[in-house]
Amino acid sequence: MSDRLFIFDTTLRDGEQVPGCQLNTVEKIEVAKALEGLGVDVIEAGFPVSSPGDFKSVEEISKAVTWPTICALTRAVENDIRVAADALKYAKRKRIHTGIGTSDMHIKYKFNSNREEIIERAVAAVKYAKSFVEDVQFYAEDAGRTDNEYLARVIQAVVKAGATVVNIPDTTGYCLPWEFRDKIAYLMEHVDGIHNVVIATHCHNDLGMATANTISGIMGGARQAEVTINGIGERAGNTSLEEVVMTLRSHRELGIDSNINATKITHISRLVSSLMNMPVQPNKAIVGRNAFAHSSGIHQDGVLKNRESYEIIDPKDVGIDENSIVLTARSGHAALKHRLSVLGIELEKEALDKVYENFLKLADRKKEVTDDDVLMLAGEHRENHRIKLDYLQVSSGVGIKSVASICLLIAGERFEACASGNGPVDAAINAIKVIIRRQMLVKEFLIQAINKGSNDVGKVHMTVEYDGQHYYGFSANTDIIAASAEAFIDAINKFPA
Amino acid sequence: MSDRLFIFDTTLRDGEQVPGCQLNTVEKIEVAKALEGLGVDVIEAGFPVSSPGDFKSVEEISKAVTWPTICALTRAVENDIRVAADALKYAKRKRIHTGIGTSDMHIKYKFNSNREEIIERAVAAVKYAKSFVEDVQFYAEDAGRTDNEYLARVIQAVVKAGATVVNIPDTTGYCLPWEFRDKIAYLMEHVDGIHNVVIATHCHNDLGMATANTISGIMGGARQAEVTINGIGERAGNTSLEEVVMTLRSHRELGIDSNINATKITHISRLVSSLMNMPVQPNKAIVGRNAFAHSSGIHQDGVLKNRESYEIIDPKDVGIDENSIVLTARSGHAALKHRLSVLGIELEKEALDKVYENFLKLADRKKEVTDDDVLMLAGEHRENHRIKLDYLQVSSGVGIKSVASICLLIAGERFEACASGNGPVDAAINAIKVIIRRQMLVKEFLIQAINKGSNDVGKVHMTVEYDGQHYYGFSANTDIIAASAEAFIDAINKFPA
Repeated sequence: MSDRLFIFDTTLRDGEQVPGCQLNTVEKIEVAKALEGLGVDVIEAGFPVSSPGDFKSVEEISKAVTWPTICALTRAVENDIRVAADALKYAKRKRIHTGIGTSDMHIKYKFNSNREEIIERAVAAVKYAKSFVEDVQFYAEDAGRTDNEYLARVIQAVVKAGATVVNIPDTTGYCLPWEFRDKIAYLMEHVDGIHNVVIATHCHNDLGMATANTISGIMGGARQAEVTINGIGERAGNTSLEEVVMTLRSHRELGIDSNINATKITHISRLVSSLMNMPVQPNKAIVGRNAFAHSSGIHQDGVLKNRESYEIIDPKDVGIDENSIVLTARSGHAALKHRLSVLGIELEKEALDKVYENFLKLADRKKEVTDDDVLMLAGEHRENHRIKLDYLQVSSGVGIKSVASICLLIAGERFEACASGNGPVDAAINAIKVIIRRQMLVKEFLIQAINKGSNDVGKVHMTVEYDGQHYYGFSANTDIIAASAEAFIDAINKFPA
Repeated sequence: MSDRLFIFDTTLRDGEQVPGCQLNTVEKIEVAKALEGLGVDVIEAGFPVSSPGDFKSVEEISKAVTWPTICALTRAVENDIRVAADALKYAKRKRIHTGIGTSDMHIKYKFNSNREEIIERAVAAVKYAKSFVEDVQFYAEDAGRTDNEYLARVIQAVVKAGATVVNIPDTTGYCLPWEFRDKIAYLMEHVDGIHNVVIATHCHNDLGMATANTISGIMGGARQAEVTINGIGERAGNTSLEEVVMTLRSHRELGIDSNINATKITHISRLVSSLMNMPVQPNKAIVGRNAFAHSSGIHQDGVLKNRESYEIIDPKDVGIDENSIVLTARSGHAALKHRLSVLGIELEKEALDKVYENFLKLADRKKEVTDDDVLMLAGEHRENHRIKLDYLQVSSGVGIKSVASICLLIAGERFEACASGNGPVDAAINAIKVIIRRQMLVKEFLIQAINKGSNDVGKVHMTVEYDGQHYYGFSANTDIIAASAEAFIDAINKFPA
């Protein structure tokens, strides 16, 4: 069997159908070009019959993209297929993706039909699609809950009718990994000619199994994985592209790989999150902010001795500069010693023990111990250099320009400035930049407040880029503008002297 | 074998060691009590030797909690174990969790030791812990990358030494599901007396496999799952409690269940997210905002005909009121018809087709089509009743009280109000509440802006509770205060008339 996995990205179809994720055509083209740069094999660009906007997007993506195959979704309905073929007319490589539900639940409740009629409709759809394009992919919707024997009969019929790819979706995210592998393996065994077509997995994450099911399906014989960036999609989402690609790279013994340029994963993850309004949680595998951050003492110690002790992926491989070690109450001697040496301070064991003891007391009060804190503990008092917020006043609204007036205390001295901006946060940050004249860029900015209403404390997470490095700032305040300014200052206070 | 899975929650230990997640003792007690209410069997409350704050937390949680066993982490070091035993002195049920790295990488690089010496240290630690408590759990750190034969020798030795639970962590999140099941099954076969102790799984999510590996481990014979709420934890996090519990509930055929009261899952998910500053992404399985939201036409149609077509978990089972169907460009006839009928309008097929056509045009321009839009399309003009923001002015800062002045247009009439608040968003929302006098509560509030700096458009996601229902509001604006007010108004505009 081939050792090549085809990556079929459905960010722009299954991902984009999520509430709040809709993109306009210009944004879709931006994502499609990024997917092309990433090296995906197939881009599912939309469901043309579903709306005029979708039709136009498939058409425009077909024009904008050169290498990947462009795929359009249809139901097993002639008009859907005709419209899809029309939308694909400019694609250099084109595929129609048609199909029908095959589980008893879908056959009975959705189609009010029977098993034989479903096979007839499936075959008719594939044949009709073949009259427009050579490359026809068939999906057996809810295949995850379809019994294997009937599923094999459906697949046998569509393979005979000319399908080039057969997609076995676990539509409800219900399958367990070994069930899903067995399902694919059953088809490999029982369908004549299956070796001349590609079997695709399309898994959902309702039980958190999407990646495991996809990898299991590949073990069973599938050679196309249907995925989305960041695992976005209906409900709990689809299989994450980044997890499947990096699992195969981390497990070379499986002998299967994709064509993905993994160093572009972090960039496209942020692009999609930003355009689709879908935050990525800090603990998301591969692309979450914390995915490569170590904070416990035992782990920090291990990573410093040998990166592979606790990391199975080199962060550089997915486009991140380096793993970050954050000093907290859980950091051990080794992490403190490492940080001190980065700051140019080498201490004897006894002196280090003393500093470590004071460090722990401080760390119990503060969430994160900064470089300045460490220097202060080591007797190098840079505390005076720390920037503190003295006062801030912001005025903003709808129909008026935002202005901020600010005073910072630096080394005990007061510095005042004011600035306007595109919104109150921008005004406050611009005012800080009038005083702190460095090339700084806010890279990530997330405000969270849950469950207790609008007077809850807003928590601001901010990543600031300075001199090629990223610095993380955090603050909590009922005033989210103040919290944003404080988080920015928190990040600045971590810059090297 | 037993059909009971013990749930060992490590939110307060492995979860809490993440940068920015640290809790104070009062907050830890709040989480511990919520975990007790949820029905967890064991609460890992901290790593007492690591810091004075951790020691105190374990002590205070021991006093505050009645039913679950309280567990304290140690290294295989006498002082760690002595301190842990001291911290646990008030616990009604207590467990010491000690252990050591067993992979060659850990033995060589972390301990600069050898296999025989590691076994000796493991046995000594277990025996020493047994001198303080009856219930001793041993962890073989990096067991995921330890060869099975040596791992069985380690486990054999600690079982003989009196360990009551043996924990097999996949510390780096490296294992594939079948490997992990085989590892547990190997121990079940090759360790004498293994049937008298409990095998625990402790999986990490670096490749997105944590839940699948945990379930696979249970299939291999494990009967304790180490988990965290929302899957938080070091790097990509630990196994999610909610995913393991609901996988077993959705797969009754596995014949294994936990003691968890699942209807409390949504509540504790939000509590932990809020206290630990860890946003949950909308597409997180079980607890994400979209986990039970359907938006594509095909899916909506299916759910309306029969809930189980696309849902394997009833949202009520995890404490959510009902699944939400959002009207977008992907919604089909059935979803539109359903929404109209909820709004009291029944249309003949032809009239429905006409309304649907106009609906699609509108949906291509708007991310989400509201009830008012639907009524307007159906000829019932409620557009006049829609609330619009005319102007907003906010003044806020550090050391001053926030005030907002606002004007809303309702049915063409202007309504003005001003209010102060705890921060600018609170002031703006209070001003709106002066005009719109209903019992409304902001339940979830998330602002996102990524990658383009502080003058990026802020995207506000807001959930407002009114009359027992939740309404979702969204807005995007460079001014995040204005965006927050607009999102609140967007949610209000969805209330039933």
